[in-house]
Order: sequence, then structure tokens, then C-alpha cells
Amino acid sequence: MATARAYTNIALIKYWGKQDPQQMLPYNSSLSLTLDQFYTETKVEFLPKQTNQTADSFVFAGVAQPVSPKITRMLNLIRQAAGWSNFARVETENHVPTSAGLASSASAFAALAAAGAQAAGLQLSPRELSIFARHGSGSACRSIFGGFVVWHAGHDDQSSYAEPLLATVDFPIVVIAVLVDQRPKKVLSSAGMQQSVATSPFYPAWVQTAESGIATMSQAIAAHDIARIGQLAEANAMQMHATTLSAVPPFTYFAPMTLKIWQLVQEFRTKGLSCYITLDAGPNPKLLCAKQDAAAVVKKLQAALPQLQCTICQPGPGVAYRD
Amino acid sequence: MATARAYTNIALIKYWGKQDPQQMLPYNSSLSLTLDQFYTETKVEFLPKQTNQTADSFVFAGVAQPVSPKITRMLNLIRQAAGWSNFARVETENHVPTSAGLASSASAFAALAAAGAQAAGLQLSPRELSIFARHGSGSACRSIFGGFVVWHAGHDDQSSYAEPLLATVDFPIVVIAVLVDQRPKKVLSSAGMQQSVATSPFYPAWVQTAESGIATMSQAIAAHDIARIGQLAEANAMQMHATTLSAVPPFTYFAPMTLKIWQLVQEFRTKGLSCYITLDAGPNPKLLCAKQDAAAVVKKLQAALPQLQCTICQPGPGVAYRD
Repeated sequence: MATARAYTNIALIKYWGKQDPQQMLPYNSSLSLTLDQFYTETKVEFLPKQTNQTADSFVFAGVAQPVSPKITRMLNLIRQAAGWSNFARVETENHVPTSAGLASSASAFAALAAAGAQAAGLQLSPRELSIFARHGSGSACRSIFGGFVVWHAGHDDQSSYAEPLLATVDFPIVVIAVLVDQRPKKVLSSAGMQQSVATSPFYPAWVQTAESGIATMSQAIAAHDIARIGQLAEANAMQMHATTLSAVPPFTYFAPMTLKIWQLVQEFRTKGLSCYITLDAGPNPKLLCAKQDAAAVVKKLQAALPQLQCTICQPGPGVAYRD
Repeated sequence: MATARAYTNIALIKYWGKQDPQQMLPYNSSLSLTLDQFYTETKVEFLPKQTNQTADSFVFAGVAQPVSPKITRMLNLIRQAAGWSNFARVETENHVPTSAGLASSASAFAALAAAGAQAAGLQLSPRELSIFARHGSGSACRSIFGGFVVWHAGHDDQSSYAEPLLATVDFPIVVIAVLVDQRPKKVLSSAGMQQSVATSPFYPAWVQTAESGIATMSQAIAAHDIARIGQLAEANAMQMHATTLSAVPPFTYFAPMTLKIWQLVQEFRTKGLSCYITLDAGPNPKLLCAKQDAAAVVKKLQAALPQLQCTICQPGPGVAYRD
């Protein structure tokens, strides 16, 4: 039995498109910042063979739920590595401000992989653990680590892994998660990726540009240049969204309010605030700010749009275990 | 002295980017529909040398205005072709529903080129006239003709011209011009194009895709397949806008209301209405509809967003002269 906690992450250079959906290999490398405001805590227990449990079980927030194929797949990978066939009992809870609008699959599968591997007695390096987590959800591999993290696209299972770029949480950058819409996405990220890959004539250029963005972003992080990090992240996010706008038929994850917030962010910059926008496969923007500007940004944003809920996140840690 | 009238046009495959800004040569060919609801009427008179006028003059809607460099350039081209050096007096009026939100430069420079060439006694073919008009504003070359028009990108002044693809106005397609914002654009189209060309990593793929879209769109027009015309036009418009979203820094001509209208258009389609969206370098969308669906689309749009002003346009004619 083992319990692990993993935090969500926000990609500054986005993962968008699988070159191998079976192995969860992405077309391009990505780069993220782990955040401190939203984590998943998961307990995994492999049951003795003599119990009368005849399947895996899954309890979410105290309520029994069906075991999803992705959970089964992760447990099978772990059992295979351990040479076991025992059924598992998985209990998980998300710790998230209701206003965050942050995805949970990254923290969920990072915590499941970590707790499962630990419970099975596997002695995995963090890199190996990131490979396991990747099979649950691509971005989960990055949540194994804290701070700034790179996921190398790779070309096969073992070469597609995450590693820390700058594993500090002591970095004066803040991510303001803005909640625009709590409803489930209309186009799930895996379907959206697939449509961009299959139909956008701009997709090959996206892969090249994102891949070369890793080095540029790494330099900006090494230089602690927050404005540059923000510029690069905003450009990369919009390029990702340009692969949906250029798909056939075109689609977008932007809501009208998303655009309104982007307009405000651009306006804040003209007033000297270091503030940039990024967003993933949904309408909820995340604002990247210099730590000293975060309070002013939230104040201005809520003055313009009082209904918005904002969660201020700081760099978060990697996977941790609990007794 | 001569007076000419030219109608505006809406591009179904967009012109976006100049490979030669001096000669106004575009990177890709474009394809448009001339519209019947907005025209410019322009009178040009070349004055006898013995008058005491010492410069060109320009009267817009009855009011004397400075002569813009583009007007001077057009008059110089005409004078050069005619072997003249007389100054000209230009009078022009736009006939436009105030709610149209349609660009005027296409009809303006088509009418100026036509009236100027006629006043100078030049015997130009329509193709030659389109080449003259192109020097005032790229899209003006398409407004020489009625109905569906192709502007061949070409590689030099003489090979970059417009010609009619299907010069009928008897085609059951309607363009609903929706006014979202009457304020001047923040990023002029020429500046926006330049930023896409210079900084979007997706721009080369845009050029290829738009160029190959000419043949596909021509087939849909020949087949009178309005749904297909709409699908292709919507996809091409969004690909054009994806070249602004992918620019560095990214920018967009979308307003929050533009997105809201796109969402409604997608919803109308699920209810069986043949309705598609296109938009140029500004937030005002144009909806392409089967003629029989136009009234229902306007009704539904105004039910959802009562403040919107809509102008229903049908295919319009080419340049005409008036005594």
C-alpha cells in the first residue's frame, strides 16, 4: 500500500498531437511549470490473492466509481513490471480550489503511477516513473517533477520522458488561473489534437516551431527573464490554438470571454504590468505574471470583470509520498 | 470626364500577404464574390493645362479632402499610360448601408481606376483595368468584375490580374454582413499581413493551402454547391486568421462578439440551416447562406443578439459607367 501526491502543471510550450497514440508518444517536446494550488492524492493497495475481490476498484472523493480503461491500463503496466497479477484498490482525491479551472488528468495519473509503483515495490527512478505516468495522460509525465520540467518527445517508450529543467519552487513567477466556464469541454483535448494533426495544413510547422521553442524557453528560464518567458509562452499557446483554427473544419477552444481577457492582458502590459496569457484545450486562461505584479493584475482584472474567479498559483513541487 | 461605379467584394479565398509591396503582388491567388449592397461612385476629370489648378483635388461625399498617396499613385499610373500630365479633379461617394461594416477600399480603387482610365481616354480591357485597380488596393482588382472572381497572384505586374470565374448575379447565395464594431481597425490589414508574412511560422503553409483552395472553390461554385462553398470559405477564413494568431507577437482581428456569432452559426447548422462565416481584417463577420435560409438566419441571429445590425447582400455586378 502506498499514497502519493502529485501537482498539476501548466505547459509553457504545449504538447499538442500524438505521433503514437498507443504508446502516448507526442510529436513535439513540451515544457511546463508545476503549480502548487491543485494536487491529486492517491492511495493504491494491491490486495492479497486470497481476498474475494475479482476486479480492480476505484473510489473517487469517497464514492465508488467505475474503473476507467486508462486506470486499468496503468495498473496493468505496474503489475506487468512487478510480475504480479493481484487486483488493486485505488482511492483518490483532488484538492483543488473550485475556481481553478485546471485540468486534473496530469496530477491524477502522476499520483496513480507513483502510488501504484510504490505499492508494487517497483524501484523506479523519477525518469522511469515519468514514463509510466505518460501512459495514463501525456502531460502527467511532467507532474512527476516540480518547478520547470521538460518532456522530451523521444521516438519510443523509453526515450519519451520528462526531466526537471530547473526544479526550484523559488522563482518569482505566478500563474493566475482564471475561471471562465466550468462546463465540460465540447472538444476533448485528445479529439482536438487528433483533428489538428489530421487536418491542419499548419500542423507540421507547429511541430517544428514548438520543438525549437524548447531551447529558447529554457534560455529565458535560465536567465530568470519573466517577461521573455511570458512572451514565448503566449506565442506558443496562440500557435497551438492556430492549429485548431486552421483545422478542417475549423474549431476553437476560445470563448468570447477568453478573448476579452486576452484584450485586457494586452492592455495591462501597456500599463507596465508583466502579464501574459496561456491556455490549453478549454476556455479558461492562465495568466503568467511577475510575482510582484500578481496582486495588481488580479485587482485590475476583477475591476473589469467582477464575476471572474482567480486562483493565484506559485511553482509547485514534484511527486511526494505519504505514509 | 468620366463617372464609374464599382461594388465591394468579399473574398471566399482570402488575399493575405504581399510578395511585392511596391507592385502589389500577392503571395497567393484569391477568389471573391462581388456584392450588390455597397458601391463607390467616382467622377474623374482631367483639367485643361491652362486652368490655374496646381495639384490634383479630391472631394469625398461633397467635402474637399487631402489627396492620399494612393490616389496620387493611381492618377500617375493613368497619366503615364495616357502620356498626359494634366491635374485631375476626383469626386467620390460611397453608397453603403451604415450597418454594413464592409471595407470600402476595393470599391473605391476599382471605381477610381475605371473612371480615371475612361476620363484619360485609355482603351483598357477589363483585365488591364484590374491591373490598374490592383495598384490602389489589392482586392480592388476583383471589384472590376461581377459575380465570382479570381485574382491570379502572378509573378509580375502584367500576370497579376483578376478575371471573372462565373460572372452571373443569378446565384442563390446571400452574404449577411453583420456589424459588430464600427470603430476603425486597431491593426490595418496591410500591417497585419506584413506581420503574418514576417513572423508566422505557418505562413508558407497558408500560401500553399490558399493557392490550392482556388481550384477546390472553383469546383464548388461550378457545381452550385452552396454548403461546400460555405465550408471552404469558413475554413479558408479561419486559416487566414490562424496566421495572425501564430504571428510573433500573436494578434487577432476577432472580437468577443465575433466568436459569439461563430458559435451561433455552428448552432444554426445543427438545425439544418446552410450558414457559414467568413471575416477579413476586422471583427465584423459576413455569413454565407443559401438564399432560401437567409431570412431564417437573420431572424435567429437577431433573436439571440438583438443589438446586431445585418445587411443582406446578393451577388453584385462589375464596374459600370455613367454619363
